[in-house]
Amino acid sequence: MSKIAVIMGSKSDYNVVKPAVDVIKSFGVETEVRVISAHRTPEEAHEFSHNAINRGVEVIICAAGKAAHLGGVIAANTTLPVIGLPVKTDMMGGLDSLLSIVQMPSGIPVATVGVNGGENAGLLALQILGIKYPEIAKKLSEYKSAMRNKINADDIALQSELEQK
Amino acid sequence: MSKIAVIMGSKSDYNVVKPAVDVIKSFGVETEVRVISAHRTPEEAHEFSHNAINRGVEVIICAAGKAAHLGGVIAANTTLPVIGLPVKTDMMGGLDSLLSIVQMPSGIPVATVGVNGGENAGLLALQILGIKYPEIAKKLSEYKSAMRNKINADDIALQSELEQK
Amino acid sequence: MSKIAVIMGSKSDYNVVKPAVDVIKSFGVETEVRVISAHRTPEEAHEFSHNAINRGVEVIICAAGKAAHLGGVIAANTTLPVIGLPVKTDMMGGLDSLLSIVQMPSGIPVATVGVNGGENAGLLALQILGIKYPEIAKKLSEYKSAMRNKINADDIALQSELEQK
Amino acid sequence: MSKIAVIMGSKSDYNVVKPAVDVIKSFGVETEVRVISAHRTPEEAHEFSHNAINRGVEVIICAAGKAAHLGGVIAANTTLPVIGLPVKTDMMGGLDSLLSIVQMPSGIPVATVGVNGGENAGLLALQILGIKYPEIAKKLSEYKSAMRNKINADDIALQSELEQK
Amino acid sequence: MSKIAVIMGSKSDYNVVKPAVDVIKSFGVETEVRVISAHRTPEEAHEFSHNAINRGVEVIICAAGKAAHLGGVIAANTTLPVIGLPVKTDMMGGLDSLLSIVQMPSGIPVATVGVNGGENAGLLALQILGIKYPEIAKKLSEYKSAMRNKINADDIALQSELEQK
Amino acid sequence: MSKIAVIMGSKSDYNVVKPAVDVIKSFGVETEVRVISAHRTPEEAHEFSHNAINRGVEVIICAAGKAAHLGGVIAANTTLPVIGLPVKTDMMGGLDSLLSIVQMPSGIPVATVGVNGGENAGLLALQILGIKYPEIAKKLSEYKSAMRNKINADDIALQSELEQK
Amino acid sequence: MSKIAVIMGSKSDYNVVKPAVDVIKSFGVETEVRVISAHRTPEEAHEFSHNAINRGVEVIICAAGKAAHLGGVIAANTTLPVIGLPVKTDMMGGLDSLLSIVQMPSGIPVATVGVNGGENAGLLALQILGIKYPEIAKKLSEYKSAMRNKINADDIALQSELEQK
Amino acid sequence: MSKIAVIMGSKSDYNVVKPAVDVIKSFGVETEVRVISAHRTPEEAHEFSHNAINRGVEVIICAAGKAAHLGGVIAANTTLPVIGLPVKTDMMGGLDSLLSIVQMPSGIPVATVGVNGGENAGLLALQILGIKYPEIAKKLSEYKSAMRNKINADDIALQSELEQK
Repeated sequence: MSKIAVIMGSKSDYNVVKPAVDVIKSFGVETEVRVISAHRTPEEAHEFSHNAINRGVEVIICAAGKAAHLGGVIAANTTLPVIGLPVKTDMMGGLDSLLSIVQMPSGIPVATVGVNGGENAGLLALQILGIKYPEIAKKLSEYKSAMRNKINADDIALQSELEQK
Repeated sequence: MSKIAVIMGSKSDYNVVKPAVDVIKSFGVETEVRVISAHRTPEEAHEFSHNAINRGVEVIICAAGKAAHLGGVIAANTTLPVIGLPVKTDMMGGLDSLLSIVQMPSGIPVATVGVNGGENAGLLALQILGIKYPEIAKKLSEYKSAMRNKINADDIALQSELEQK
Repeated sequence: MSKIAVIMGSKSDYNVVKPAVDVIKSFGVETEVRVISAHRTPEEAHEFSHNAINRGVEVIICAAGKAAHLGGVIAANTTLPVIGLPVKTDMMGGLDSLLSIVQMPSGIPVATVGVNGGENAGLLALQILGIKYPEIAKKLSEYKSAMRNKINADDIALQSELEQK
Repeated sequence: MSKIAVIMGSKSDYNVVKPAVDVIKSFGVETEVRVISAHRTPEEAHEFSHNAINRGVEVIICAAGKAAHLGGVIAANTTLPVIGLPVKTDMMGGLDSLLSIVQMPSGIPVATVGVNGGENAGLLALQILGIKYPEIAKKLSEYKSAMRNKINADDIALQSELEQK
Repeated sequence: MSKIAVIMGSKSDYNVVKPAVDVIKSFGVETEVRVISAHRTPEEAHEFSHNAINRGVEVIICAAGKAAHLGGVIAANTTLPVIGLPVKTDMMGGLDSLLSIVQMPSGIPVATVGVNGGENAGLLALQILGIKYPEIAKKLSEYKSAMRNKINADDIALQSELEQK
Repeated sequence: MSKIAVIMGSKSDYNVVKPAVDVIKSFGVETEVRVISAHRTPEEAHEFSHNAINRGVEVIICAAGKAAHLGGVIAANTTLPVIGLPVKTDMMGGLDSLLSIVQMPSGIPVATVGVNGGENAGLLALQILGIKYPEIAKKLSEYKSAMRNKINADDIALQSELEQK
Repeated sequence: MSKIAVIMGSKSDYNVVKPAVDVIKSFGVETEVRVISAHRTPEEAHEFSHNAINRGVEVIICAAGKAAHLGGVIAANTTLPVIGLPVKTDMMGGLDSLLSIVQMPSGIPVATVGVNGGENAGLLALQILGIKYPEIAKKLSEYKSAMRNKINADDIALQSELEQK
Repeated sequence: MSKIAVIMGSKSDYNVVKPAVDVIKSFGVETEVRVISAHRTPEEAHEFSHNAINRGVEVIICAAGKAAHLGGVIAANTTLPVIGLPVKTDMMGGLDSLLSIVQMPSGIPVATVGVNGGENAGLLALQILGIKYPEIAKKLSEYKSAMRNKINADDIALQSELEQK
């Protein structure tokens, strides 16, 4: 039973979504990945958002660009937490996507991450699950440690590179 | 039978919508004014957009602010022309509303007017009807003449004011 | 008799205009395509906008970039609906074009679509004609169905691609 | 035992935070409200973020303005979901706050809501708890119904007001 | 015979234009002040720009706001230097006006001053005349000296105020 | 004796300046081209701006990017009209350059053209000279006619290209 | 002998500068406060920047708004650290001032603080002096402690206020 | 004993940092270069900022991008001057980085240079040291002279290139 649904407005957004899917899979959490458009397949968006909770979905990630309504449209029909992932665009580098997602009216929040922030969308979904599933919280701690170790290794590597010059 | 529907996401947007309603009424065209929220009443938005064409509506004006999805959500379910009216906001003066409305993906246009451009939203709806109803086109010509006369009168008034100084 | 006129400020904008022309042609609607500049050929712009209605034009699409005045200048002289198509620019990705087109003063609306939104400009023109010509409205419904089918096919394709990994 | 912590960088931000606190309290969920500054009390921020999980906190809301680092600084030291609430500023209406919060580097997400979106920050925290505590999910459904009823009542009220004119 | 024409798109812009008129008058240069709208009185704009040079006008100042086309429309029909004065607007503080005026396509420059920069528009017109009329150049030198003296007096005044504290 | 001086803050800006120089040369007007930096050679900037008028310069074009102070620094020391030419930058496409040039305080105008608008800077300088030198004004009229003819030829060419398809 | 010079482009900017002066005085450091305009008194700016180092000045704070050149103009003529203080403006809330100050070309840095950040400009000047004068560094530590205590007191006060409700 | 520390949030930012390191080395000043992340290695950031002053560091340069908190986090724990170097990003060209660094709250300044302004960050650090170490101030004067000579040489070269055409 998939706990995290990842939907995108256009199949061409998959490259932005992939880091979210990858980090979720690396945690061993089941995910379902869908192409559903708020504007081109409104019926499917409506049905998906109404039924997600009954199919065991606990968090929904919505990636969209430009006048990015997908997150808001899904959030309108569910009480599950919805994460909005703004896709970079040619105009203003995704600021249009970001504002269309984050500036939701009172009552219908969308938890927004940075432009093209696929990995962070996935990690945020995992953090949300982590308050319910201790094994996910444990893996998040390990993930944090690995990041710290990576930075520390980079720090040492850079200093030795600079010394050799 | 109302030809132009004017909907807004929140009753508090009525002051922005009123100039649209006023200009439409001054042309003697029937209008229906509704409060429907893409996020808070998605079922009503869905039903409204599906049935509008059958109830004789020919143009739909949608006013919304911030992450302004109303126009896009309505346009997703109808082939009628949809006019988006961005409401001024505290953040960036309505640029968030404007981008959320105008930057629609290919396939689902929303005809956008300027921020708080209520009168222009109404006039655009009338221009669209004008290609079908000659009496509306005729009134639009008269409206244009009146605007011209008004500016010319202002021009004369200003010059006489300045001379008297 | 062409129902939709598509004009651009510079021949180099044709790549932005082409999707509009293509979608209009695919609907079997006659279009006339012109290069007319608000700044370099003001007489031609004046003449075109005055006479368009008499030559059977019912909607005018105006593509322009930067200080994009073409839509406004045409709209000043006609009661036909005018659609503004902002062309992407190097500076701010077309935000300058967009604001120059959409922020029209009261009395002279320009129905604005997104930056480089050629296809949407064409579809909006067709939606406007659709309220007068039922056969165009019918084709718009079919177009919407085709879009829906395309997204659904993408959805199925993506899921099968992911399963195979 | 408080499940949601609400912290702000300056006591003067309390008016922005209050709608979050109010909606959380109206759901009967315990909250702790703190003034902790990423820049002026870094030790307290460090200690708070390290110990929150052990004291039973499950979601943290961080409100800050301008170069708004509070959310990121807290998120650096915890695996709990952190919600960033950008405070409106004089410069660019809070766009500086928004970008400082949402554009987090990969690995450390902050779930961002709109500028001055206090109520949405509270609701998002409740939605996150809702996946673990069914009674909260149930109240969220009731909250959604109440919003819908409110809009529908506004819709009816507006139409009767307009008829009486 | 007026050497500088000052036109505005709406009589309500006169407060922005007034500092231009005042500084020109203080130099003893004749000015004509007009209300002409690029959109509402396109015929008048056309006639004005064609005939200005024959009536002795040597510089034209055009004040307009939002999608501010007045300067460009006038410049299209004359070889006289045209100064664009962007009027502050509610949305983005006049950035829309500024971009609509300054970002002109190659071939039709508009000499743009800052938002609500009425005095600078007037001074720029005088500087342009100054290359032809030595007495204006001489007065500009005196104006510059007066500004310098004013700042120096302010400098002394501030220091004595601070000492007295 | 050169009537138009064209200065740039860095030799690397020459590609932006070249269209200005080219159009001025094509009008047969003498120009002097200089590399002078407001920040790196302040003495030279000071000397240049003080002496320009005595050496017969009548208009000064200043090209600069980023915190583009060159135009303002030159304008501080002369009563000649100064044209500011903002150079496109990596950050915000030259908006930083544009605002640094156009938003001058009252008393010291800089006549600003669009970002990378070299040709327009040159033409504006020629229009300014045109009020004093009738032969330049005459050539400007011819330049305008050539532009018009070019657009009309493009118009005809595009239509015949489209017909052949 | 004053160690910190605080200069502003216009006497009306004094309210923005005052917090800088106040914090410097509270540290017992001598300051000189001047009104010098890059554009209106370029000679004075030139002289001031050349001689500051000889008169014992060690840091210079420059406050200016809009096309804010003061910091850059002063920095051009001195090797002392120059702090730029952007003044809030009506247009874009001071973003124009900020970009005009911070985006300096390579070779001439201006140490920029936030818009209207008078207190921070003063503190930064003190931090710079602190590396040379141990007693100033010591006072900066005390200042930091006082800030921390203030936030902690606010934290306690807020919690007791909330409990009493 | 290194006087200037240069830290960056990610090893991939080294290309932006390198010009700072290079100019510092060319002045013969010892520098230490570190990779420390405010978000991924908060403990290291905490320790570094607390101990820097004791290890002889006198100025700290912090390079970071997007929600760039590094400078603020370091400044929170030290009274040394901290220089913020915003890294260019895909979204808005680094405006997000710039605002996250410069808009610090009162009490904790970060001396900000332009986006990707590595050389200026290094020079600013040297200017700060220059008030304490006369030999650095002397080299800064020589650096300024070399810049001036370079521009003057470019000026002469450009003029001779243009003459040869």
